[in-house]
Amino acid sequence: MTLLVVLDYLSVFIFALTGALVASRAQLDLLGFLFIASLTAVGGGTVRDLLVNREVVFWIANPWYIGTACVAAVLVFFTAHLLENRRRAIDWLDAGALAVAVPAGVGVALNLGHGPAVVVIMGMMTGAFGGLMRDVVCNEVPLVLRQGELYLSAAFAGALVALAVRFAIGPTPLALLACAVVTFLLRAGSMAFGWKLPVYKSRPPRNRM
Amino acid sequence: MTLLVVLDYLSVFIFALTGALVASRAQLDLLGFLFIASLTAVGGGTVRDLLVNREVVFWIANPWYIGTACVAAVLVFFTAHLLENRRRAIDWLDAGALAVAVPAGVGVALNLGHGPAVVVIMGMMTGAFGGLMRDVVCNEVPLVLRQGELYLSAAFAGALVALAVRFAIGPTPLALLACAVVTFLLRAGSMAFGWKLPVYKSRPPRNRM
Amino acid sequence: MTLLVVLDYLSVFIFALTGALVASRAQLDLLGFLFIASLTAVGGGTVRDLLVNREVVFWIANPWYIGTACVAAVLVFFTAHLLENRRRAIDWLDAGALAVAVPAGVGVALNLGHGPAVVVIMGMMTGAFGGLMRDVVCNEVPLVLRQGELYLSAAFAGALVALAVRFAIGPTPLALLACAVVTFLLRAGSMAFGWKLPVYKSRPPRNRM
Repeated sequence: MTLLVVLDYLSVFIFALTGALVASRAQLDLLGFLFIASLTAVGGGTVRDLLVNREVVFWIANPWYIGTACVAAVLVFFTAHLLENRRRAIDWLDAGALAVAVPAGVGVALNLGHGPAVVVIMGMMTGAFGGLMRDVVCNEVPLVLRQGELYLSAAFAGALVALAVRFAIGPTPLALLACAVVTFLLRAGSMAFGWKLPVYKSRPPRNRM
Repeated sequence: MTLLVVLDYLSVFIFALTGALVASRAQLDLLGFLFIASLTAVGGGTVRDLLVNREVVFWIANPWYIGTACVAAVLVFFTAHLLENRRRAIDWLDAGALAVAVPAGVGVALNLGHGPAVVVIMGMMTGAFGGLMRDVVCNEVPLVLRQGELYLSAAFAGALVALAVRFAIGPTPLALLACAVVTFLLRAGSMAFGWKLPVYKSRPPRNRM
Repeated sequence: MTLLVVLDYLSVFIFALTGALVASRAQLDLLGFLFIASLTAVGGGTVRDLLVNREVVFWIANPWYIGTACVAAVLVFFTAHLLENRRRAIDWLDAGALAVAVPAGVGVALNLGHGPAVVVIMGMMTGAFGGLMRDVVCNEVPLVLRQGELYLSAAFAGALVALAVRFAIGPTPLALLACAVVTFLLRAGSMAFGWKLPVYKSRPPRNRM
């Protein structure tokens, strides 16, 4: 089992937990949990695989990924009521999933020999699209649109660090590990300490420029 | 004309009717009707074809599918005002379309030799994604998220029955027919008699588990 | 550099401007601008490329497209406050992008030898899907659903004109130019002078038909 497969399984499992928690907020039945959990879990990787033209989408080649998502969904269906604050749990689990999914996307794109720009984009997309689909379908405000939080920026920085390690030092596993750590620290720091980039603020039009 | 082609045409036509009815609720013009009807009609099958890597997407290989959707859209544009209750008509037509689209997806996946898990997922996705796109684009509450109704569960049960018939008895057409009947009966029973699975209800956290 | 490449770059740049302006309305940070701008800019062409099974998606073959979208996003991030009315700017830029993206889609489909129906659909999809993704993700009312405005109709008419010129007169560049002009004039006329098609209005059910 290669590192990429471990990353894929881990991101599937954690993203599925977030999907199931969102399903619990929408008070769906068990099949609804399975659906939203699976959509969240494999959404980002599916878009990645379609775009880079992998011969088979990862979870069709190996349906155990869907099985993993279903386990997570059932787990949440029977235990979510134990959580004090589901919104907060979703945010932290999503941060963990992001930190695993970005290196998973980066790793696939590196393996296929893509250039730096595509590697960074694939990392960000694999990280962001599953959660985006979950939020759009369930009509939550997408996490990528949450103002004043590092999300895409964390994914972007993680992907850049992966590239830097890969080309300066060498081993891909080290690059992916660095990517995961940087992505998680930035996202977690943003949630815990309010780290953020300046957001766009409209100002009145000036008279002269 | 094989059974799969008949199922595809039928699901395209009925889904297009539902799309056009949703377009009528949004008071769109004729092109809007054609767009939403087509999106609903071929959305699920398109995702299925992209995922299973069919050489050509079904409606690009044969644009008469889009023609069929357009006929349905024009029909609704000129007659929808005759309906007493468009929301109810959408629900029932969508149930019919679901009951045709699930076996269509199951059939394609069986033909391509996929395993049971992928067959079930393709059936559910072909059934659910067209309506999901329709509802997300038109900002209606997606039917898959409607609380306390069998929708994904009906599709799931239908796909399971198809598998059971296929492997226990044999002929694919019989399996697809059984799939359609089971899917429709469960969905219809849910709408008519309130059949449902238990939904997730949050309870206060317990002190001990 | 062929005409199709010029059209692709131009539509990427203008759509990216609209995406960044929508991001400014949502008060995102710079990475959010880059994300929404890129999604809008390459969304339509990506769906087109996946559906017609182009060997590589255009912006993966050539990541400068994403670079172009990023330039537009940065430009807007630092200058959007100079605009008096961003909603109006979005509408007009979107009209320009539509008028470039429709011929881009038509051109790709013609090049691949598709029939008239697929050519028209690819033109409309390339034109409409980037903006649709932008609006769905950012929770704006999709432009395609704006009542009483020509949008899809303008794209449809433009694609038809392209086909007519292509088969009656011949040269593809002329057909694409005519397509762009017709699409823009209809969309602009609709915004400036209120041109529209009749929209669906529900009437009470009649007693006899």
